[in-house]
Amino acid sequence: MSFNTFGHLFRVTTWGESHGPALGCVVDGCPPGLTFTQAEVQAFLDKRRPGQSKFTTQRQEPDRVEILSGVMAGEDNMSVLTTTGAPISMMIANTDQRSKDYSEIRDRYRPGHADFTYDAKYGIRDYRGGGRSSARETAARVAAGAIARKVVPDMNVRGALIQIGEKQIDRSRWDWEEVGRNDFFCPDAKAAEEWAEYLSSIRKKGSSVGAVVEIVAEGVPAGLGAPIYAKLDQDIAGHLMSINAVKGVEIGDGFGAAARAGEENADEIRIGNDGRPIFLSNHAGGILGGISSGQPIVARFAVKPTSSILTPRRSVTAKGEEVDVSTKGRHDPCVGIRAVPIGEAMVACAIADHYLLHRGQTGRI
Amino acid sequence: MSFNTFGHLFRVTTWGESHGPALGCVVDGCPPGLTFTQAEVQAFLDKRRPGQSKFTTQRQEPDRVEILSGVMAGEDNMSVLTTTGAPISMMIANTDQRSKDYSEIRDRYRPGHADFTYDAKYGIRDYRGGGRSSARETAARVAAGAIARKVVPDMNVRGALIQIGEKQIDRSRWDWEEVGRNDFFCPDAKAAEEWAEYLSSIRKKGSSVGAVVEIVAEGVPAGLGAPIYAKLDQDIAGHLMSINAVKGVEIGDGFGAAARAGEENADEIRIGNDGRPIFLSNHAGGILGGISSGQPIVARFAVKPTSSILTPRRSVTAKGEEVDVSTKGRHDPCVGIRAVPIGEAMVACAIADHYLLHRGQTGRI
Amino acid sequence: MSFNTFGHLFRVTTWGESHGPALGCVVDGCPPGLTFTQAEVQAFLDKRRPGQSKFTTQRQEPDRVEILSGVMAGEDNMSVLTTTGAPISMMIANTDQRSKDYSEIRDRYRPGHADFTYDAKYGIRDYRGGGRSSARETAARVAAGAIARKVVPDMNVRGALIQIGEKQIDRSRWDWEEVGRNDFFCPDAKAAEEWAEYLSSIRKKGSSVGAVVEIVAEGVPAGLGAPIYAKLDQDIAGHLMSINAVKGVEIGDGFGAAARAGEENADEIRIGNDGRPIFLSNHAGGILGGISSGQPIVARFAVKPTSSILTPRRSVTAKGEEVDVSTKGRHDPCVGIRAVPIGEAMVACAIADHYLLHRGQTGRI
Amino acid sequence: MSFNTFGHLFRVTTWGESHGPALGCVVDGCPPGLTFTQAEVQAFLDKRRPGQSKFTTQRQEPDRVEILSGVMAGEDNMSVLTTTGAPISMMIANTDQRSKDYSEIRDRYRPGHADFTYDAKYGIRDYRGGGRSSARETAARVAAGAIARKVVPDMNVRGALIQIGEKQIDRSRWDWEEVGRNDFFCPDAKAAEEWAEYLSSIRKKGSSVGAVVEIVAEGVPAGLGAPIYAKLDQDIAGHLMSINAVKGVEIGDGFGAAARAGEENADEIRIGNDGRPIFLSNHAGGILGGISSGQPIVARFAVKPTSSILTPRRSVTAKGEEVDVSTKGRHDPCVGIRAVPIGEAMVACAIADHYLLHRGQTGRI
Repeated sequence: MSFNTFGHLFRVTTWGESHGPALGCVVDGCPPGLTFTQAEVQAFLDKRRPGQSKFTTQRQEPDRVEILSGVMAGEDNMSVLTTTGAPISMMIANTDQRSKDYSEIRDRYRPGHADFTYDAKYGIRDYRGGGRSSARETAARVAAGAIARKVVPDMNVRGALIQIGEKQIDRSRWDWEEVGRNDFFCPDAKAAEEWAEYLSSIRKKGSSVGAVVEIVAEGVPAGLGAPIYAKLDQDIAGHLMSINAVKGVEIGDGFGAAARAGEENADEIRIGNDGRPIFLSNHAGGILGGISSGQPIVARFAVKPTSSILTPRRSVTAKGEEVDVSTKGRHDPCVGIRAVPIGEAMVACAIADHYLLHRGQTGRI
Repeated sequence: MSFNTFGHLFRVTTWGESHGPALGCVVDGCPPGLTFTQAEVQAFLDKRRPGQSKFTTQRQEPDRVEILSGVMAGEDNMSVLTTTGAPISMMIANTDQRSKDYSEIRDRYRPGHADFTYDAKYGIRDYRGGGRSSARETAARVAAGAIARKVVPDMNVRGALIQIGEKQIDRSRWDWEEVGRNDFFCPDAKAAEEWAEYLSSIRKKGSSVGAVVEIVAEGVPAGLGAPIYAKLDQDIAGHLMSINAVKGVEIGDGFGAAARAGEENADEIRIGNDGRPIFLSNHAGGILGGISSGQPIVARFAVKPTSSILTPRRSVTAKGEEVDVSTKGRHDPCVGIRAVPIGEAMVACAIADHYLLHRGQTGRI
Repeated sequence: MSFNTFGHLFRVTTWGESHGPALGCVVDGCPPGLTFTQAEVQAFLDKRRPGQSKFTTQRQEPDRVEILSGVMAGEDNMSVLTTTGAPISMMIANTDQRSKDYSEIRDRYRPGHADFTYDAKYGIRDYRGGGRSSARETAARVAAGAIARKVVPDMNVRGALIQIGEKQIDRSRWDWEEVGRNDFFCPDAKAAEEWAEYLSSIRKKGSSVGAVVEIVAEGVPAGLGAPIYAKLDQDIAGHLMSINAVKGVEIGDGFGAAARAGEENADEIRIGNDGRPIFLSNHAGGILGGISSGQPIVARFAVKPTSSILTPRRSVTAKGEEVDVSTKGRHDPCVGIRAVPIGEAMVACAIADHYLLHRGQTGRI
Repeated sequence: MSFNTFGHLFRVTTWGESHGPALGCVVDGCPPGLTFTQAEVQAFLDKRRPGQSKFTTQRQEPDRVEILSGVMAGEDNMSVLTTTGAPISMMIANTDQRSKDYSEIRDRYRPGHADFTYDAKYGIRDYRGGGRSSARETAARVAAGAIARKVVPDMNVRGALIQIGEKQIDRSRWDWEEVGRNDFFCPDAKAAEEWAEYLSSIRKKGSSVGAVVEIVAEGVPAGLGAPIYAKLDQDIAGHLMSINAVKGVEIGDGFGAAARAGEENADEIRIGNDGRPIFLSNHAGGILGGISSGQPIVARFAVKPTSSILTPRRSVTAKGEEVDVSTKGRHDPCVGIRAVPIGEAMVACAIADHYLLHRGQTGRI
């Protein structure tokens, strides 16, 4: 893992800023012989794309992915691409780079943003649009995730928003079908209705709220991961924490497990009708000792509220002047919504990577 | 990062099982010219060592660390060791490997343990003492952490237990001095008293509870980390999640930030008396955009209750028989207690690593 | 290091095939605050570009590099780019992808090419233009090398062709100025004249010959590298061996040292006029125990003759038929010529990487 | 790859100096279920061990390897060890650390040694016995290589000394059986006789000579490696160059290929009696485009003469005084001899690593 690359064998390198000509990624170590279409990748990007409802920023970008290398088009059907084992380069042009006036924020450290720390680190800062911390960078992750989903046969990675500000879903109403029907990737139809009203008021105030996202990966074979420093949960945690604005990560019952007694927490096992072991619960979130158990992998992450708000906050400039900073213009009142497809992509990449690592070390797949 | 190594430039490789002759670590990439003593490393190991109170397992091992390479002893004072830049190998002999009878658990998958997943992964399992998942492996991390603490000048990494089962501390009573005075690394004297009674009853029942640990690193310069995949918080999260039984990690306000509005969450900035920016709060936990801000780094992690309990739990054997499993003998009623020095070590290693990375890329330290 | 990335801290990932829309690289870990122009990068690409003399293939591609990320343009002079510390993505469009007929070589394993081994590895082969083994991939390395040259202050990396087929230069006539004056990067004017005639006859026959390239890096500070597995010579050797068609690498006297006695081989040291140690010879090629000594770094590599020749060679098809294969069309009679700027780039990248590693571990730069 | 680790998936970390209590290695990523004995590992160490003939240094160390982790002993036969997939830690005690007087060389930079560059790099130098550059470090590599040999089924890696000083073998007399019969690992019985006389005279003079070693790996399946930066030849070259005193590496015909025409160099292919492709020659040394072809892998490396000689050479001290340095005491007149088992080990490790990488990425083994 290095500054702009993640993964061990299935490695993703991303590049680009929101105000340059383009951004993209290089997916390396992908198995040969996988097939996919540009449209499949595009579909995931479209889920992440802003401007689709009043609850996300109105920046309008088609986010059209170009696939530049690493594949061969089919002879019969040119739209079917087969991976060759070479690195897959994907690029997304930035089409909405209006020559905005950044002079105001150029020297100001927006509270809650990385302006101050970028300057501390690099001594130079690309003040146009957040540099590498731009939410647009995540489009590249989503494109990589679309490839990762092909690596593990029968894997299905889905995500949902389960909390927005202080408002949580009722898990008894969880319906995966519902996730695609509302503006929040919310699995609880009733909560989604309430959230619409709640978030509208947040948006009108120019305020923002945080959120919690849950990712569930089904169809993951037992045996992926390792006991110590290549734990599957460790890499999922690291991958999710690498998303902008994420401040916490849980596997299975997470912090809830801390409050519990050992009798309640361990997942008991019996022999199922097919003669194979089945777990009677999934407090562990599908991972025991860093290794997948064959149960669904369950991870959650907390997204902080964006600091781009209308209310002025106290801050300073690079020159040491005290100023008040507020953000005009349209911003996402809840950046956690669009984090759902990103979280899915990051979990898919982590599992794909460990699938290849496991096959490499043990040959048992 | 690979199966048994963590870190980028300051890299730690650990090895060993609790039932072999020894375990240890190799610390690579350590700067030359740092000085330390064997006693300093030993002091951290002694904090982690079991058998020191009735609340931790009674396995009695001196856990004496031997330093085998990478240092030169002082000419005047042989006990002062100076790093040469070569890899530092440290070894801890296993002295308590009684020829215990493992035949009973040999084929049984203990619920909540990694027995089932080890078999799924490797097709072979070292059933004696948990293999690499043994808590003893963490002694090697603590030894490495003792070196890491020397890498960043003036850094002070401390930890405390802030929750045990459902019982949390009162943060208004936080007193670092108190941490060393009770059996729980608890910063709240009153809570520690209550916990003693509570945990005694858990122990007598042969039950167990989870816990939450908080680590605070002070004296960390601004600028460590990176915006995307070498985020300081990402590596801290991954490092902490790599500890046995950890199921959740938070930075700063963590999951609490999800419930909050943007106005409350951003840390405002002013100019301090010395003319330099100061933050008026630390919701971010000392990290903005993946990069340290100079404020204290604050991380928390949740430890699940150990599954080694007296109450029988349903399970199966490797041969597909249904059995009940219970754990006789003495085990920690709360493994989270001993996780405090381990968490400190992992955070110290993450920060030391990023200190070197930052110096390497930017030369700005 | 992974499939398509090289370097530890200064990391270069390349992507693209000669018959896709583009190829490129991502340079990660570059220090912030370096300045360069697109024209500087282009100048190195132009040295490598084919079609410039009758001794290189006539494929005509402008090889124009686009710099897509990781830099900020100057406010006064937009052509001066400053690195921000973010990944630098560079892309070169493929403009000469004529819809050539590849049906003939599609199933044939060209002797001396990687056709057979690609099929063995991946089970699928991009038969159009050699896939990742295409010489065009090296354009991306040259672009990365142009950035690497900026990392080490005062470093000067130059290369020369010192042997073509059986014809070697006379080292007593070595003149760096001469390198830019002939079609061979040859430092010996007289040899260059002879080579012109020699290579014309090779070309007319549709044959090919190998070559030896020497790279010299001056201005490299002492202390870069490491004693064991991050030896500077090891990484230089690996980097050079990663170039297509390279079959041997030497540092300093290389294989010549094997034939020599210890008395002749060791470079003696005296105190120079400035009171600092000076070496009286440079048999070691500027590297002792894996670490740079401050003397010029000298490396050489052998390039095999291309197998794209007119004379039919015996081979087989993927289907198991015996065939004869010969290459019509224009090809480089000596691919070693264009390997000179590539070798320079790879050595520059290796040294830049170790400069950052050394600064990271020791802080002594 | 990092300072003291090599390999991607099959990773070897070594540690220790010749004058500390021990040295060793940790082999990580080893597949589970491989079986071996301590005696097998010991046998390879014994080949490398000094003091076995008058042509190697008389330092007498038993070099007994202890296997500390990562294996389970058989229930029937305790000497049969099975790998569990956990890291294998192996240690070799240093028993010959007499309290020698190093005061003379303490501040002197021995010409041809790394004394000067260590000081330049680290600002501190372990002057006792060469630190990490000690030849003893290679014992750890040989132990790791013994495990690597088990990873690839049916692989056979052998080495031979083919040149000593200016004296080369006659390849037409090559006999692998002969390699074990003389003191030089020489495959040419007649040459071995001549070398004995030649090297005796070198030794008596207190001089030294260089050597060339050839390594041949048979039974390597086609498909290992990658086209660009994980080329099998690149990693073999890097691994061999990481051995002390190595100054050059060749694959197949190596530098000889540079002098040749394309017609001679390409290995032609026909269909063999079994219906599968066979190569009619092996100029390529078993690697095409960075990927193994199924032919024997052939690599050669040049070892420089040791600088530990009786003749005084001019040098300086750390304090800037001019001195003459000569080495009394017994040293190897040709360090290349003992490099044979080391070279075998490094090639075995490189191939084992690529076997796992290939299986991981493609699943085609």
